[in-house]
Amino acid sequence: MKRQHTPKITTDLISCESPNTELMHEVMCAQCGRCGRDNKFLREDLEMFTAGVLEAHGAPREEALTTARVLVQADSRGISSHGIARLGRYLKGIEAGYIRPGVEMRTFSPTEALGVIDAHHGLGQVAGEQAMELAIAKAKKTGVGVVTVRNSNHYGIAGYYVQKALEHGMAAFSMTNSAPLVIPTNGAEALLGTNPIAFGIPADKQRPVLVDMATSVVPRGKLEVYDRNRQQMPVGWAVDEFGYDAQNPGRILQNLLERAGGGILPLGGRTEEFGGHKGYGLALMVDMLCGVLSGSAFGSDVNNLNRTDLPQGEIQAPRVGHFFLALDVERFMPASELRSRVDAYVEMLKSSKVALDREMIFVHGEKEQVRAELHEKDGIPIADNVLNALRQIAEKSKVKPPVTLAQRQH
Amino acid sequence: MKRQHTPKITTDLISCESPNTELMHEVMCAQCGRCGRDNKFLREDLEMFTAGVLEAHGAPREEALTTARVLVQADSRGISSHGIARLGRYLKGIEAGYIRPGVEMRTFSPTEALGVIDAHHGLGQVAGEQAMELAIAKAKKTGVGVVTVRNSNHYGIAGYYVQKALEHGMAAFSMTNSAPLVIPTNGAEALLGTNPIAFGIPADKQRPVLVDMATSVVPRGKLEVYDRNRQQMPVGWAVDEFGYDAQNPGRILQNLLERAGGGILPLGGRTEEFGGHKGYGLALMVDMLCGVLSGSAFGSDVNNLNRTDLPQGEIQAPRVGHFFLALDVERFMPASELRSRVDAYVEMLKSSKVALDREMIFVHGEKEQVRAELHEKDGIPIADNVLNALRQIAEKSKVKPPVTLAQRQH
Repeated sequence: MKRQHTPKITTDLISCESPNTELMHEVMCAQCGRCGRDNKFLREDLEMFTAGVLEAHGAPREEALTTARVLVQADSRGISSHGIARLGRYLKGIEAGYIRPGVEMRTFSPTEALGVIDAHHGLGQVAGEQAMELAIAKAKKTGVGVVTVRNSNHYGIAGYYVQKALEHGMAAFSMTNSAPLVIPTNGAEALLGTNPIAFGIPADKQRPVLVDMATSVVPRGKLEVYDRNRQQMPVGWAVDEFGYDAQNPGRILQNLLERAGGGILPLGGRTEEFGGHKGYGLALMVDMLCGVLSGSAFGSDVNNLNRTDLPQGEIQAPRVGHFFLALDVERFMPASELRSRVDAYVEMLKSSKVALDREMIFVHGEKEQVRAELHEKDGIPIADNVLNALRQIAEKSKVKPPVTLAQRQH
Repeated sequence: MKRQHTPKITTDLISCESPNTELMHEVMCAQCGRCGRDNKFLREDLEMFTAGVLEAHGAPREEALTTARVLVQADSRGISSHGIARLGRYLKGIEAGYIRPGVEMRTFSPTEALGVIDAHHGLGQVAGEQAMELAIAKAKKTGVGVVTVRNSNHYGIAGYYVQKALEHGMAAFSMTNSAPLVIPTNGAEALLGTNPIAFGIPADKQRPVLVDMATSVVPRGKLEVYDRNRQQMPVGWAVDEFGYDAQNPGRILQNLLERAGGGILPLGGRTEEFGGHKGYGLALMVDMLCGVLSGSAFGSDVNNLNRTDLPQGEIQAPRVGHFFLALDVERFMPASELRSRVDAYVEMLKSSKVALDREMIFVHGEKEQVRAELHEKDGIPIADNVLNALRQIAEKSKVKPPVTLAQRQH
């Protein structure tokens, strides 16, 4: 059933999720309610389209395909805020020169177990894939591989890279820093990114456990949805430029854009009463590994395209940093035993007592994987407004827009 | 100024913190308000007393000293819920036979970078110290060391072990699982521990950054204080056996004791609105590394002394598991550069805009370290009720009670 609406056509981020599904860590379409998602696409078609657009903008074939895979996996898993709705932003970065497809990334190996990649402002997904592959190769040798990445760009969903390690039967971490949106406890100024942590471990009969979470209480997309719907936010999501609770999403977003003070709260909220200092600590931990240790930008310097103090030869660029760790769990016990233990844990959770007003207990990664399985069969739904933006991009890039599943079947 | 009160004399945990200090992650004495802390002690005196008591209960000298160091460091840092107030519990464990001082712990080294320790139900602090030292030694060789511990006991403050790595100029993680007190999102039954994460990285002129946080919204100690004060808890800390918000701390504590359902909420609270699923994910991540991967107990099996399904030869024991990771940051860049970058981050935070109703922004580890520095000079304050319990222990163990600083100076 198509809802009536006139979406603002833009190539910028549009947070929109599949209706009729509960969402683990992003915004639900039911909350936004502005557009239908009647158009579904085969994963391959979306990947080919996305890769084609990136190639038309100068990305080598392999890089275009990698980036497309990461973006479309987000849509497939229902995290469309990190999916192909981002394509417009990436093209903007390529046009402005701070995302450089095809650039040569330099890899250092300080020890057999450690790696450092300088992404030289290339595509974040390309750097991320290369880094996790390196971490996995190192973990195959020494049992654990740690790889940091500097001078990178937005790398999409943190969980994508963990999935790669899971395919090798490994446990893994993936983290990234990001543009400052989050307030430190007692502060009134956004210094920290939403700095996500992803962690995964393989199971046997059950789906692998895959935690993938921003360390902020909500993502920025949630504020955007509330703003579009002219809704007041609950107390505990954001503060104004004085550090006081703020419920007007438009004001917070405007302040963030202008770096005028205020921002989103860390997981746990404004004060220590509900553990806000813990979310702040997690965001700081992620940035210490991704920004400080990697040699990239950190804190309020991430994604700062207006810096004037850059050393000669450095370009104005987001300078995002990532951190990857792959752990060869088979060195700790036989793979089958480890996997059965993860199964047992999942079963313990799934069979435990449910709250009277709830239907079931979810295990991390479960919702996303169920969705991906459904979408693999029935196609990936893309929101109308995203689709409109993609058609504009297709025209501008002289690339054929993706055909819907319905068109394909005719 | 001594407050009038008749503390319940017990050797069990007493959560009590120094007055006049803000506390990063535990309970403040000002909230409890039941006892004075006029008695201060030299760190060495508390360590010698604690070690003496443990020796009198059969612990070898070295093990007794290690355990004493970890417990007293907690008091020194102001985290007295994890300090020598725990001594009574440890003695109970030794008497009951599930804490086995002097037991031989077995160490495996699957690779140069990985280690596994079977603590064979020995003292948690002894296993923890040994494991972190192994991780550091491995990190010196390969740049990173990962060590898991199984069949251990309560290991005290997670941050102690990270401090050890900081002394070697390394960054580190320390995590442990713990008895089930925490509800998974949508659940009505405590399956997860408060499963803390500690992370640290060294600085130069600034104090090292040291995050040390339970993944629950509050520690159990906070409920105990509210119960003692007959205070109603705020909504968002705990749920009853139906999974509904509960504000009666006594009822929740009773339910937890009887494993009757309900419990403490994960960081982020009861629902996904404020990110409760994220705290749940973090607790699960910690247990996957500490319980599942180590080969120890996990989920509701941790600390379960009433199991009837144990394989032959295994004893009824808490079977707590830990996870340690040491990272030789100097392999990534010169130590001086890394440390200056951490300094710069701390300075960025400390100089950023403070909320109008707050006084300053704290960086993780700062409050605890300031307190430890003060206590090193002026003595460590011990709450009257803890002191009474310690005097009972001293008498029973035929060990001289510690002399106060005032007594020493006479």
